[in-house]
Amino acid sequence: MIPIISIVGKSDSGKTTLIEKLLPELNRRGYRIATVKHDTHGFEVDREGKDSWRHKKAGAYSVIISSPNKVALIRDVERDLSLEEIREKFIQDVDIIITEGYKKDVQPKIEIFRKEKHENLLCTQDDSLVAIVTNKKFDIKVPQFDLEDVSGLASFIEEKFLKSRKTEEIMLKVDGNNIPLKPFIKDFLSRSIRGMISSLKGCEDPKRIEIRIENIDNK
Amino acid sequence: MIPIISIVGKSDSGKTTLIEKLLPELNRRGYRIATVKHDTHGFEVDREGKDSWRHKKAGAYSVIISSPNKVALIRDVERDLSLEEIREKFIQDVDIIITEGYKKDVQPKIEIFRKEKHENLLCTQDDSLVAIVTNKKFDIKVPQFDLEDVSGLASFIEEKFLKSRKTEEIMLKVDGNNIPLKPFIKDFLSRSIRGMISSLKGCEDPKRIEIRIENIDNK
Repeated sequence: MIPIISIVGKSDSGKTTLIEKLLPELNRRGYRIATVKHDTHGFEVDREGKDSWRHKKAGAYSVIISSPNKVALIRDVERDLSLEEIREKFIQDVDIIITEGYKKDVQPKIEIFRKEKHENLLCTQDDSLVAIVTNKKFDIKVPQFDLEDVSGLASFIEEKFLKSRKTEEIMLKVDGNNIPLKPFIKDFLSRSIRGMISSLKGCEDPKRIEIRIENIDNK
Repeated sequence: MIPIISIVGKSDSGKTTLIEKLLPELNRRGYRIATVKHDTHGFEVDREGKDSWRHKKAGAYSVIISSPNKVALIRDVERDLSLEEIREKFIQDVDIIITEGYKKDVQPKIEIFRKEKHENLLCTQDDSLVAIVTNKKFDIKVPQFDLEDVSGLASFIEEKFLKSRKTEEIMLKVDGNNIPLKPFIKDFLSRSIRGMISSLKGCEDPKRIEIRIENIDNK
């Protein structure tokens, strides 16, 4: 599963700026990153009057704009999605997900704090706070990094979230719902499926297997 | 697999307008639609200076903007994707995909033609043309609909693409590549997997099964 970390902090503490510094540092180390930003106000699909805007307006559930170097997808959702749901539905081919905000979600958090702006932290240790980026020392038992120490912060993220994730993961979804699996079942499913496909061409040394079965007619 | 149809036509023939009429008609009949638009010029991620724009600029591979009723995803691609690749990577939870343009792709096409604008059709029957929406009769063996007959066109699409797709589909991807499967293997995999999970809670009467196995350590 792709790890998620949230950069949180009070308003105007410098969350976006920190992410802007962190991204090139992690890219340089060879990692691909997805970012997630929450937008309470909603946003516009492309510019008013453009074709994709007109499609959405006319009732398309999803609209995709495809170009030679970027693809955009805009789709309806019934409610605010959790970070887990966003990861499941929208994110693939990256090593880590960094979110801006999402203080209320359960994922690990790094808080940015600048003493010129605020008096107290936004998070406590209970809020799954794993580090602070700050220009003031706090008496709290999590690693603290100087505002300019982006390299130190990147190493921390690398150690804690990127190097350790080598365990095998199996995910089963039925009709869109995640089915919780006990370790024995995980192992049984994983080994059985790997065995079944192992003699097919192109399946000799798989690192990632995806299977989708649709329109099942259960008589 | 979700069916794809492309609305094609020469420049200024009314493709977007036709899609704008078709979408509410198909929505009214209970179908969910995704649209795809090709953008050769590339497009901007959100507005300049906004947080998500800054994330992308700083090197994020994907950027997600999540709001209570819509989610947007923008991600890098190495080249222009085919409609099949777009379906595979980005589209779920819809009944049909309608594209604007994509004349060169292999998917079935409906051409819109207005005699005030052009002399000849863009497609021939060889271009997998399945219907024409036109105000001029053509001597060509595909169904032809009047420009205003959106209801007739919707019925045609419904019959040809939406009602017939009840066959079971199984898709196997290994390390991101589609593995072609013979009918016997499809049936074997599908029945085995359905059998294996059938006693798990929540898997009693599946219509759609998705399995993902990651980070496989093949000793």
